[in-house]
Amino acid sequence: MPVQRRHDPEYRGFASDNYAGVHPEVLEAIALANGGHQISYGEDAYTEHLQELFREHFGPSAEAFPVFNGTGANVIALQAMTDRWQSVICADSAHIHVDECGAPEKVAGLKLLTVPTPDGKLTPELVDRQAYGFDDEHRAQPAVVAITQTTELGTCYTPEEVRALADHAHSLGMKLYMDGARLANAAASLDVPLRAFTTDAHVDVLSFGGTKNGLLLGECIVVLDPQAVHSVKYLRKAGMQLASKMRFLSVQFDALLGTDLWLRSAQHANAMAQRLYQAVREVPGLEIPRPVQANQVFAVLPKPVTERLQKRFRFYTWNEHTGEVRWMTCFDTTEADIDAFAAAIAEELRAG
Amino acid sequence: MPVQRRHDPEYRGFASDNYAGVHPEVLEAIALANGGHQISYGEDAYTEHLQELFREHFGPSAEAFPVFNGTGANVIALQAMTDRWQSVICADSAHIHVDECGAPEKVAGLKLLTVPTPDGKLTPELVDRQAYGFDDEHRAQPAVVAITQTTELGTCYTPEEVRALADHAHSLGMKLYMDGARLANAAASLDVPLRAFTTDAHVDVLSFGGTKNGLLLGECIVVLDPQAVHSVKYLRKAGMQLASKMRFLSVQFDALLGTDLWLRSAQHANAMAQRLYQAVREVPGLEIPRPVQANQVFAVLPKPVTERLQKRFRFYTWNEHTGEVRWMTCFDTTEADIDAFAAAIAEELRAG
Amino acid sequence: MPVQRRHDPEYRGFASDNYAGVHPEVLEAIALANGGHQISYGEDAYTEHLQELFREHFGPSAEAFPVFNGTGANVIALQAMTDRWQSVICADSAHIHVDECGAPEKVAGLKLLTVPTPDGKLTPELVDRQAYGFDDEHRAQPAVVAITQTTELGTCYTPEEVRALADHAHSLGMKLYMDGARLANAAASLDVPLRAFTTDAHVDVLSFGGTKNGLLLGECIVVLDPQAVHSVKYLRKAGMQLASKMRFLSVQFDALLGTDLWLRSAQHANAMAQRLYQAVREVPGLEIPRPVQANQVFAVLPKPVTERLQKRFRFYTWNEHTGEVRWMTCFDTTEADIDAFAAAIAEELRAG
Amino acid sequence: MPVQRRHDPEYRGFASDNYAGVHPEVLEAIALANGGHQISYGEDAYTEHLQELFREHFGPSAEAFPVFNGTGANVIALQAMTDRWQSVICADSAHIHVDECGAPEKVAGLKLLTVPTPDGKLTPELVDRQAYGFDDEHRAQPAVVAITQTTELGTCYTPEEVRALADHAHSLGMKLYMDGARLANAAASLDVPLRAFTTDAHVDVLSFGGTKNGLLLGECIVVLDPQAVHSVKYLRKAGMQLASKMRFLSVQFDALLGTDLWLRSAQHANAMAQRLYQAVREVPGLEIPRPVQANQVFAVLPKPVTERLQKRFRFYTWNEHTGEVRWMTCFDTTEADIDAFAAAIAEELRAG
Repeated sequence: MPVQRRHDPEYRGFASDNYAGVHPEVLEAIALANGGHQISYGEDAYTEHLQELFREHFGPSAEAFPVFNGTGANVIALQAMTDRWQSVICADSAHIHVDECGAPEKVAGLKLLTVPTPDGKLTPELVDRQAYGFDDEHRAQPAVVAITQTTELGTCYTPEEVRALADHAHSLGMKLYMDGARLANAAASLDVPLRAFTTDAHVDVLSFGGTKNGLLLGECIVVLDPQAVHSVKYLRKAGMQLASKMRFLSVQFDALLGTDLWLRSAQHANAMAQRLYQAVREVPGLEIPRPVQANQVFAVLPKPVTERLQKRFRFYTWNEHTGEVRWMTCFDTTEADIDAFAAAIAEELRAG
Repeated sequence: MPVQRRHDPEYRGFASDNYAGVHPEVLEAIALANGGHQISYGEDAYTEHLQELFREHFGPSAEAFPVFNGTGANVIALQAMTDRWQSVICADSAHIHVDECGAPEKVAGLKLLTVPTPDGKLTPELVDRQAYGFDDEHRAQPAVVAITQTTELGTCYTPEEVRALADHAHSLGMKLYMDGARLANAAASLDVPLRAFTTDAHVDVLSFGGTKNGLLLGECIVVLDPQAVHSVKYLRKAGMQLASKMRFLSVQFDALLGTDLWLRSAQHANAMAQRLYQAVREVPGLEIPRPVQANQVFAVLPKPVTERLQKRFRFYTWNEHTGEVRWMTCFDTTEADIDAFAAAIAEELRAG
Repeated sequence: MPVQRRHDPEYRGFASDNYAGVHPEVLEAIALANGGHQISYGEDAYTEHLQELFREHFGPSAEAFPVFNGTGANVIALQAMTDRWQSVICADSAHIHVDECGAPEKVAGLKLLTVPTPDGKLTPELVDRQAYGFDDEHRAQPAVVAITQTTELGTCYTPEEVRALADHAHSLGMKLYMDGARLANAAASLDVPLRAFTTDAHVDVLSFGGTKNGLLLGECIVVLDPQAVHSVKYLRKAGMQLASKMRFLSVQFDALLGTDLWLRSAQHANAMAQRLYQAVREVPGLEIPRPVQANQVFAVLPKPVTERLQKRFRFYTWNEHTGEVRWMTCFDTTEADIDAFAAAIAEELRAG
Repeated sequence: MPVQRRHDPEYRGFASDNYAGVHPEVLEAIALANGGHQISYGEDAYTEHLQELFREHFGPSAEAFPVFNGTGANVIALQAMTDRWQSVICADSAHIHVDECGAPEKVAGLKLLTVPTPDGKLTPELVDRQAYGFDDEHRAQPAVVAITQTTELGTCYTPEEVRALADHAHSLGMKLYMDGARLANAAASLDVPLRAFTTDAHVDVLSFGGTKNGLLLGECIVVLDPQAVHSVKYLRKAGMQLASKMRFLSVQFDALLGTDLWLRSAQHANAMAQRLYQAVREVPGLEIPRPVQANQVFAVLPKPVTERLQKRFRFYTWNEHTGEVRWMTCFDTTEADIDAFAAAIAEELRAG
């Protein structure tokens, strides 16, 4: 029995940008890289070309290491930036802290030192709450400041804010890591090139997310300062993140970064979030508690309204206590999707 | 600039079955699963269907957990079968011991207790060389016997051999794990259903390899005895092996196991190895030191011959000291490929 | 050249209870256990007797496992209470979080979920800030609530407070662990038997600290509910905490718990802290910001005063920002020590 | 009830040198270091003096780090010599491989690459069986050769043999670690200073064992080449091996190394093993299969003889299959002990 379609290819919701599928241009690129034999584990022509692409976007010292997923990118990169007894300072809302089943601790033995933030963004002052105890063997030595761009709360660091953090970290002998699962959305939001808030802002290492921007799967660890890491290649293999048929990871990034697809898709997702925001911001009974800077809209709704809405459209409750929900847009969200959802929100709020 | 093809889709070698690309039927299946939104992290329709497929092939208690790669499958499965202080007995040629950069030790803290074997295959007697010291807290407690089917040396366990190992392991309070990176090749070689040498031979847990049999990427951990494991779901996530867009892993297995593609491809690869073996077995100056039971042919050649041949066809030297080389066939190897390679082997051997 | 004394045996300060030496009765006990051969690794007569002693103090199901130090006791015990993907909820002032160089994360892969507290003490409400996400594979599963008795801030849980925490933890399917580095000081402070706030308050596992109460070195992991742990013996060995000549650890606990030495020493240390508190509480210019419930006195002083005082008596600054300092008393602190120190404090404060 | 003696201080057996107690001179040294307050965690006067002692014995670049036990010394030292993805080559009889419950793998994620040896001793040729695959990310990179002096089989490396191993390791970019749980016995056996087969033989790092040579407990990691390690201080703390009242570890080493006690005790133990060997070597029915070079005598006996003997004197069976047993002597073994044991051996052998 041949493979059957088992889902409705027209259904889209607002739960997450990883509910979406593969952008058609990415699927075409995969097909193009198919056929014949290519050396496995990264010595193929597509992975070689990948380096050029990343250097174009992130400057001549950039080196990219494709991995399977965001957890992998984060944990491998942070290990490459630390020694066994060191620790990482991050916001207490950071994905590495709240959403990876303890992978940094379990796989890498890393200690995360967390700081509460109002908006998901660290500042030099917030970093200082944990950046102490240097040379004291009783304290897991702080070695890395880890930030997320865009943040888990839909906010976006400006280039100046990133640079201030990087310079502060460096002044303390620490390094700056950027979790860029939604890096393209940040560039689209800030309307600057990728390097403006990464390489030019003195970030040492970052991850460049593909999965949430239309890839089948794939992230890249991008080393901007080669002095900031050691032995990524061994850590990637030992970390179970080395793809054998790597050409199929790499060519997807070619589809993204070798054209304007990365930006086009991110701009579209962000625009859809803005469209949603504009459509509902003045609807009575609804609160939008956070700025809408990328492809996420947070809202506070009465629980019965949320429950009825969730029967019609998929999305997640962000905070059970406050009733805050998260609505997420993707490369494939349409204007009609937004308009229908906004109408439903208004309708259900009116129903109370 | 749109994505360009950067390789010769007609070039094929004999280096590894992971040099090959994606089987066209698998690529079609991926396209079929594309479009619209599906719940991420495994609650999609394709991953749900996957369970039925694995139950058809491995019996009603089988449960499948897709992961990215073979290292991930092995390390997650072995953790699910052990506690923190336990150890795993394997052949000293086992992939988990020699080819994973210490991932079992580094990620999982597992101790591997190795045994030399003549042909890559463990036996109850060989297991006993390491299966001792139970209840002695100074010895990392042996908990799992791990075998590879087909083995790294191209040999294949019979159902009876597997069962003897499983029963012996169970009699010692241990469990049997089968690394099935090339499980389909074993079924093709033995000409029996998959369950004959797995479920019916009392294997507890196995990995079912897809990457080396024509998938873009993907392996499944297959739990045959639910009592033999605990908490695979947490270990998969913490082990950085949980795909967000899992539908694209699962539908590839649908393409394999929902049709006869898994067997067709494996039979073809095995037949190509036999064709090569028959073509060269009596060529003077060549020794075939191991039985050819799946899709690998090992040969001993004079080094100058190997060097000249490697300029014409890609393949690996297996043992620098003995001059043994490995030739591997795939789902896409053609009869013409074999014939050209066999002719070249004979030619270079004649040239001495 | 025979061994020489290299220190002043009459000098005592207020830095820590681990600056003190060995109580003479403990040293006598070590000498008594010396001579002849005893089976190593815990099968000696003193370790056997140890079990009786702990059962007398903690009830018939108690089992004790001597280890070298408090870090070892905490990390081994927490591993025995968890599986690989689980997490531990603790106060953000907990010793396991701030003072063990990341040992729980590095050695055991444990994730610590921290909660700010006003006084170092968790409550059921504070636990609930982290006790969520059960069954969600993206969250390291909360399995243990870990408290310290007496706390790092010199406060003491009442039996009722401990029981409320234990019952709350159990209602969530979690367990309660008590870091008892200063457990004897808590019993002295509460004026109840050890079991009143441990076994009878439904604690599952605890550590019983010896080092800070006059031992040469040594702590015991004490399992109160055998169902709450697994395989302590393997974890202790693999955790590098299994003493070969264990008789010399065990006999020290015999000196403590087989007589009233544990209580006598703790009562004395606590009384000395009270004496200091009474002597300085009304000295102008000094603030005592925390209740004095055991053998620690916290005080806020002008920095110049602290600096001058530290030249005369050793003690630590607790918080550089607020100027808070910590004064600690021990089994060997004398009334004269306290009186001299109190006089110096008053004198330096007067000098401004 | 005061502490009671619970054992026979006159009973001695032949099971292990860690069945013995504390040498009286060591106990006196502990008492001398008692009283008053000393800075904890190694900033005391005794630990400071310790550095001088080790420099006297091992040369001016030596630095000593006291730890609790041999497992701790080995695992901390090996971590300090490696990075996360590296591996250690050792004999398959090495204590780190067979007797530490997988601590190197579990605590440090280290992969051990083992080699069978006839006598417990590695050679450059044997090292080469595992020293390959450099730069290949699929192989945990060999970084350290680890040997034991004296070996687990009672044999002793000559200075020349050690130097050949060290030079070979260095030529491969690797380092040499020596597990010196019985280092004093080696010096006594070779009749050379400690540095002759350590510093002067180009060893990079070693452990110096105290427990088996009359200490209450304690080993030192001794760094001979500071370039060969990194951050021992953090690894010791995170590895749960940092003693708070460190003066009591350090002063014991003062008793050993500040006098000739280390050598006197080792010479005595070795002489007792020779006395036993001479007494039984020609007894009919007994085989001594290994050279007696330190304080261990291995013998092959009929099982019924072993069983009857074990009822009279404690010792261990080394190999259940061959009937080989191990007899161990200590600092406190007397000539009378040996003579009585030798007589019993002869008597039981005669009885058949």
